[in-house]
Amino acid sequence: MSVQAIAWTPSGAVRIIDQRALPDAEIERELESAEAVADAIRTLQVRGAPLIGIAAAMGLVTGTRDLRAAPRAAFLAFLDQLVPLLGAARPTAVNLRWALDRMRRVAAETPGDGAALWERLKVEATTIWEEDRAMCRRIGEHGLSLLAEGSNVLTHCNTGALATGGIGTALAPIYLAHEQGRRIHVYVDETRPLLQGSRLTAWELMHAGIPCTLITDGAAASLMRQAKVDVVLVGADRICANGDFANKIGTYGLAVLARHHGVPFYCAAPWSTVDATLGDGDLIPIEQRAADEVTTLAGRATAPAGADVLNPAFDVTPARYVTAFVTDRGVVQPPFDGSQ
Amino acid sequence: MSVQAIAWTPSGAVRIIDQRALPDAEIERELESAEAVADAIRTLQVRGAPLIGIAAAMGLVTGTRDLRAAPRAAFLAFLDQLVPLLGAARPTAVNLRWALDRMRRVAAETPGDGAALWERLKVEATTIWEEDRAMCRRIGEHGLSLLAEGSNVLTHCNTGALATGGIGTALAPIYLAHEQGRRIHVYVDETRPLLQGSRLTAWELMHAGIPCTLITDGAAASLMRQAKVDVVLVGADRICANGDFANKIGTYGLAVLARHHGVPFYCAAPWSTVDATLGDGDLIPIEQRAADEVTTLAGRATAPAGADVLNPAFDVTPARYVTAFVTDRGVVQPPFDGSQ
Repeated sequence: MSVQAIAWTPSGAVRIIDQRALPDAEIERELESAEAVADAIRTLQVRGAPLIGIAAAMGLVTGTRDLRAAPRAAFLAFLDQLVPLLGAARPTAVNLRWALDRMRRVAAETPGDGAALWERLKVEATTIWEEDRAMCRRIGEHGLSLLAEGSNVLTHCNTGALATGGIGTALAPIYLAHEQGRRIHVYVDETRPLLQGSRLTAWELMHAGIPCTLITDGAAASLMRQAKVDVVLVGADRICANGDFANKIGTYGLAVLARHHGVPFYCAAPWSTVDATLGDGDLIPIEQRAADEVTTLAGRATAPAGADVLNPAFDVTPARYVTAFVTDRGVVQPPFDGSQ
Repeated sequence: MSVQAIAWTPSGAVRIIDQRALPDAEIERELESAEAVADAIRTLQVRGAPLIGIAAAMGLVTGTRDLRAAPRAAFLAFLDQLVPLLGAARPTAVNLRWALDRMRRVAAETPGDGAALWERLKVEATTIWEEDRAMCRRIGEHGLSLLAEGSNVLTHCNTGALATGGIGTALAPIYLAHEQGRRIHVYVDETRPLLQGSRLTAWELMHAGIPCTLITDGAAASLMRQAKVDVVLVGADRICANGDFANKIGTYGLAVLARHHGVPFYCAAPWSTVDATLGDGDLIPIEQRAADEVTTLAGRATAPAGADVLNPAFDVTPARYVTAFVTDRGVVQPPFDGSQ
């Protein structure tokens, strides 16, 4: 079974796994207020774009529990304080604002006082979560045929149950194959600098009992040369109309290596990742992150003070390197220009 | 100026830079006995195959300083205690045993008592060091023509002044180009798992005033796609007769990426790295290292306890990916079958 990264408590609080403590310890926290949820998002106790959106929606419900007896205007006024509070927790997270906007709109469209509004919001937050869970499962079902019995899959970063409300995106076909008794083994790139592979992906695969082996990012090439990798399966942060896509730094190198060694290379992502307004990958802005992600680890310097560092969060993989895209709408090929 | 990793003190002790303290602090130590030198080698205060050999040879001189008034037999008997002491400091280091054997042989062949033997050993240790320094310089001179004004060079691991008695192997052309006023910029792969790139290479390049930028290993591919890398320059741990070579894990991936992007890929190493008894790279034994190099950093867990890890120290790059080999004998092409 995959881990459950988020859940309601019986009283309408938000229960999460504190991802900061992983992989050392599995700590569950019950977040009893919208402030606590915002803090959990801000401090990366909860991360992964889909999961952040779900957490924020649920946080609005938790934060308005005590206003169930309030009149409509008071309830909405308080909601309007919580939306920006939660929205500011991760400034660039698109899913976060999308989920909050959807919750606010539903509240506006729902008649009645606090009790009715609160019940409706709880249904909507649960729906957002359920939609995400279903999306993950559909990606998994569509990707299942790509993983033969005995496959060795290489993956990068964390695209699993810890990033979503369900079984993940690129990890979804792996979870489903395992669930169906298919023998699968996963090579997990540690994914420098933030080590999402070793800290999160290895942890959740081990938690689910799926055989996996951790490697440094630089070891992937020699595994491919030794024909130890049958499939590469990665996620995406944004997919352009022509199929070029941005994903965690290191993805493009894997794509070139897979092509060179004749290994199929799949990108798995929800259809909502497609940004048809971007014609090609050159138009994707690449976030440059702080040097200290590379130069320190656990507060200890791993590089000289003042070292110049280039730390792009993402790279762009041109569509021609991608064998196919595994989405909740099926295994598809670009262009993704809205004609599908 | 490149850093000087080792030197004599006026009294015949061995002065080193404690490489364990890098990059946090530059700590020089004066090793006043053979035991102290052995301990410095054992605890990785001194590392890098050529440098270890030099340190051991110098350690024999330091350790016999007080026997200069001793008769020949007593001097040699004491020397025979120090040789295995130093030889055991790093069990698999070939250069270490080579240097100690050479010192012991010279002592046996030199007539006279303690004073004469000690003077001869000091000359021999200095010669071993000088030969290494000259070897580095020759590699640098031969490689200089490969680095045009304004070149961006990508390198991996540490192959510089901290690994040798001179200006290194793959870094030697870079030091010489800088010395001659040529404008050079180096992208330094951090080189997981042990981070020799960020801890050592970035440090020694910054120390020498050579512009450099630290990157994660996974970022190299996207830099090549953006045409930001003009040359890849790496070292070698062992070169086969057909030109296949073993080097730090991650090297092979760089070779494939360089080929894919039309970037010249050079391997720089002393001629002594050629092992003509090995026909090709499949015959090179690859050392598998402990999991905790990948799963912990500075004593902190970066992966789940009990995670399965594959941690090969080296990979093999087939000769066909190498534009040329830069050696102390010139810029050459395989085969290296002894006919040169």
